[in-house]
Amino acid sequence: MEIKTIRHSLSHILAATVQEFFPGVKFGIGPAIENGFYYDFDLSEKITPADLPKIEKKIKKLLKQNIKFKKKIVTKEEAKKIFKGQPYKLELIKEVPGKKATIYESGKFTDLCKGPHIKSTKEINPDAFKLTKIAGAYWKGDEKNPMLTRIYGVAFKTKKELDKYLKLQEEAEKRDHRILGKKLELFLFDEEVGAGLPIWLPKGAVLRHTIENYLYEELTAQNYKWLYTPHIGNLKLWKKSGHWNFYRENMYSPIQIDEEKYLLKPMNCPFHVKVYDSKIRSYKDLPIKYAELGTVYRYEKSGVLHGLIRVRGFTQDDAHIICAPDQISQEVNNLIKQGLRMLKTFGFKDYIIYLSTKPEKYAGTDKSWKKATDTLKYVLKENKLEYQIDPGGGVFYGPKIDIKIKDSLGREWQCTTIQFDFNLPERFNMAYIDKRGKKKEPYMIHRALLGSIERFIGVLLEHYAGSLPLWLSPVQIWVIPISTRHKKYAEQVKKELSFLRAEIKDENETVSKKIRGGEIQKIPYMLVVGDKEMKTKSVRVRERKKGDVGMIKLDKFTKRVKMELETKK
Amino acid sequence: MEIKTIRHSLSHILAATVQEFFPGVKFGIGPAIENGFYYDFDLSEKITPADLPKIEKKIKKLLKQNIKFKKKIVTKEEAKKIFKGQPYKLELIKEVPGKKATIYESGKFTDLCKGPHIKSTKEINPDAFKLTKIAGAYWKGDEKNPMLTRIYGVAFKTKKELDKYLKLQEEAEKRDHRILGKKLELFLFDEEVGAGLPIWLPKGAVLRHTIENYLYEELTAQNYKWLYTPHIGNLKLWKKSGHWNFYRENMYSPIQIDEEKYLLKPMNCPFHVKVYDSKIRSYKDLPIKYAELGTVYRYEKSGVLHGLIRVRGFTQDDAHIICAPDQISQEVNNLIKQGLRMLKTFGFKDYIIYLSTKPEKYAGTDKSWKKATDTLKYVLKENKLEYQIDPGGGVFYGPKIDIKIKDSLGREWQCTTIQFDFNLPERFNMAYIDKRGKKKEPYMIHRALLGSIERFIGVLLEHYAGSLPLWLSPVQIWVIPISTRHKKYAEQVKKELSFLRAEIKDENETVSKKIRGGEIQKIPYMLVVGDKEMKTKSVRVRERKKGDVGMIKLDKFTKRVKMELETKK
Repeated sequence: MEIKTIRHSLSHILAATVQEFFPGVKFGIGPAIENGFYYDFDLSEKITPADLPKIEKKIKKLLKQNIKFKKKIVTKEEAKKIFKGQPYKLELIKEVPGKKATIYESGKFTDLCKGPHIKSTKEINPDAFKLTKIAGAYWKGDEKNPMLTRIYGVAFKTKKELDKYLKLQEEAEKRDHRILGKKLELFLFDEEVGAGLPIWLPKGAVLRHTIENYLYEELTAQNYKWLYTPHIGNLKLWKKSGHWNFYRENMYSPIQIDEEKYLLKPMNCPFHVKVYDSKIRSYKDLPIKYAELGTVYRYEKSGVLHGLIRVRGFTQDDAHIICAPDQISQEVNNLIKQGLRMLKTFGFKDYIIYLSTKPEKYAGTDKSWKKATDTLKYVLKENKLEYQIDPGGGVFYGPKIDIKIKDSLGREWQCTTIQFDFNLPERFNMAYIDKRGKKKEPYMIHRALLGSIERFIGVLLEHYAGSLPLWLSPVQIWVIPISTRHKKYAEQVKKELSFLRAEIKDENETVSKKIRGGEIQKIPYMLVVGDKEMKTKSVRVRERKKGDVGMIKLDKFTKRVKMELETKK
Repeated sequence: MEIKTIRHSLSHILAATVQEFFPGVKFGIGPAIENGFYYDFDLSEKITPADLPKIEKKIKKLLKQNIKFKKKIVTKEEAKKIFKGQPYKLELIKEVPGKKATIYESGKFTDLCKGPHIKSTKEINPDAFKLTKIAGAYWKGDEKNPMLTRIYGVAFKTKKELDKYLKLQEEAEKRDHRILGKKLELFLFDEEVGAGLPIWLPKGAVLRHTIENYLYEELTAQNYKWLYTPHIGNLKLWKKSGHWNFYRENMYSPIQIDEEKYLLKPMNCPFHVKVYDSKIRSYKDLPIKYAELGTVYRYEKSGVLHGLIRVRGFTQDDAHIICAPDQISQEVNNLIKQGLRMLKTFGFKDYIIYLSTKPEKYAGTDKSWKKATDTLKYVLKENKLEYQIDPGGGVFYGPKIDIKIKDSLGREWQCTTIQFDFNLPERFNMAYIDKRGKKKEPYMIHRALLGSIERFIGVLLEHYAGSLPLWLSPVQIWVIPISTRHKKYAEQVKKELSFLRAEIKDENETVSKKIRGGEIQKIPYMLVVGDKEMKTKSVRVRERKKGDVGMIKLDKFTKRVKMELETKK
């Protein structure tokens, strides 16, 4: 039996159980979802998480009763009678096409449902499911409708799978970047500022600046040229680029300036194209690589916003490579290598690569699509990289490669994207003069390696559970003088380590309290200094995770952290 | 006689002259302005700059005729008769308060004018004025009104003053940052992107990044904490901060997101306050210094936009210092010293300081205003800095110090501003816990040292006529191999100078042509390398402005530019 069917059937048993406890309940819908199921109820009484074990126990009892699932096809008129007093079901019956409706009976509970279902509750392992939470949910997801009570559950075939899942959830919760973000004082969201608009607190800003600086130096060394472009652009630009037609639902409403309309930019591309077009370009100038840390604004429904992972304004590590046809394989090769190398630098070694091909509607010629797609495949093969094909999954303007990284819990996160664009070069008449003096259209590749800096930091925090590598840690060292007479030496140690972000903790607190504080703050190294350390020019090192690793000569420690910084370990 | 009166009277003579050439002309207004005057005309014929000498000649002739200015007070009814057929004047008559109007007669020309004027044209030096340009100007500055023809003139008491002014203008034109920006490929404006929205080209982005990096390092070393905040904020925030009431005319129209309204930020302040308010603060935490390179968007009429100097989106080197009352004099002292030191680093040694005091309407208490104003005065005095008082010129939320720099042409530019704010701490209930455990309101100081990065770069370009100091030059070195066999050595030289932004110019062009190109691009050093240089590990140095300064050993040259970089000379 498919696990999805088991999950779906469990949602019916959940509904049956709730009905036993609350006879007057009105039913919404109850589908299977990823890892489990839910059911929506309209209840006159308030129900709390404390009620869940009781309901769970009852479900287990029912499961053991070998209840059968019976499918029946009835006329809509009959269905209306059966669901008398169930307004949501009656509403759904109206929406069923045709004259008949399918219902499923399981014990005393009947549901309007297309199925499929299991034959009997025997097929459900009563030890492999769990009710997990209660949430409010608008009927049909529309906030104008009544708010229903949604009970969520997870379900698997075996208890082992369930336990593994629950453990992963527990682990994931501990790593929740939203909680870490608060605890480590990295960023905040504020209702008066607006949902999905992160404010970077000082420590978070250090982290972000460190990443941006790394990108700046890496890309400058690789001959990328940096741009800064505005956050708004005239409607004329977005009409010409096609965003107004093809991307409007992701864009915010226009701003009126004098007689013109302006839009917050959802992408940086048209600005980069404008820079390219500002001069006549020769084949000798190519490839041209424009990079920008460009903050873009895209509409997301408030319900899907999630910490830094899903926001309404974010900063892309964006670049556009504009090149001649004979340069694309070299450029794509560079990009893939660069992407994987950078992700590795941040500690992500596992990834999955997807190649998305031509969709039904597309810009550009078949020939260009074939050449670009073949190039992507060729480069992946040359680099001996395994990949999955997503047929027809390319965006309308060109084929693409996506790299999803796997974090320490095995979860996948979309980061790098390398996309051909056959749309903008045509719309903006991009051109270069080839060797024979002829005007030609260049290839353009969009690419983002980390994707969104905000999102990437969210992923980083969850991957490391907040214990960021030394080079990324906002505060890298705490120097803790044992008493006031060691303060001067602590200053000396700090000065010696001035290439690091070091702080002296000389508050009037016990050393052990400071150490506990430093552990919560995930400080990579705490250096305790007292008489002995002072005398021998040493530091007593507490390493994050390892704890006290003993006394080390200051110059030796300095060398060691310098190395650690340089290798970004 | 005041020069302003002379200028104003000249505008009447200009009008009289235009009337002689174009008898049907309708008159707008003709005031004195800085350095000169203008007059607006509604003309049926087109008039071009080529017509100006003719008009000028005629004016000179009139001036020598010893024309008298006669003041008359007439009833409005009489005035209406006098200005029959002059619709703009008739409109103005309606707006004159009371029943009477003042007119001035000078020869055949009569104007509705409050005066004062000179007694006779004898008082005007006919060799000390010049008509300078023609421009379109809407009647009353409103684009819904007819477009009039405005003729501008400049006038002084002596020919010497006029000549000096014209020479300065000529020099200023050569230094126009808009022209330099194009020539040096630093930035561009694009009609489809929108007026007043600069796009930074690669070389301009290097310049901007260099300045931003300098600020980042300077302020980090001084214990400033960096923030990144969004470019939009909910209307609720702007209502609470008071911007919606007091600053709305500078803000753009709202963006609708779901049920809420958002606004592009015209300032960063409310976000910084939110960060401060996110935690309970103790007197031990103060002063807290938040810095941000925050890009803000403020409405400017399209007519006043001017290159990078006046734009619609710009990046403030913004900071807020939040401190206890007993810390303000120390903090203001730091700020003034820091401001002057930074401006000096960029090459500005001359400045004028203004202190603006309490206006009629103000937030905060008289006591706070007095304390803050006294502190500003005290610190200026302590630093032996001369200043001018602008009585009542403070913004409503607090007194301020402004520093205007003088550029190489003696022109003044507003840069540093240090402003107390008594408004936001109150509106946002900012607080700290003092030594005795009591909740207190802190002092908040807004400050920007360079002001706007965009504007400052505009000023820098004009100050240096594009020849930026080495550390700011987007491209610092050109290495020019004499022939292909010197290319390898050129590479070696470039590598040796890898701490600089160096380029090898190995295009198929003559050395002298390359040098000419480098001069236009204002490259600080061009290093020509041939056989002799290769053999002796030297470079032939062409210094910007000085030209060829001879052959120098490479290691010696390296040391020298390293020193130049470090001292930011």
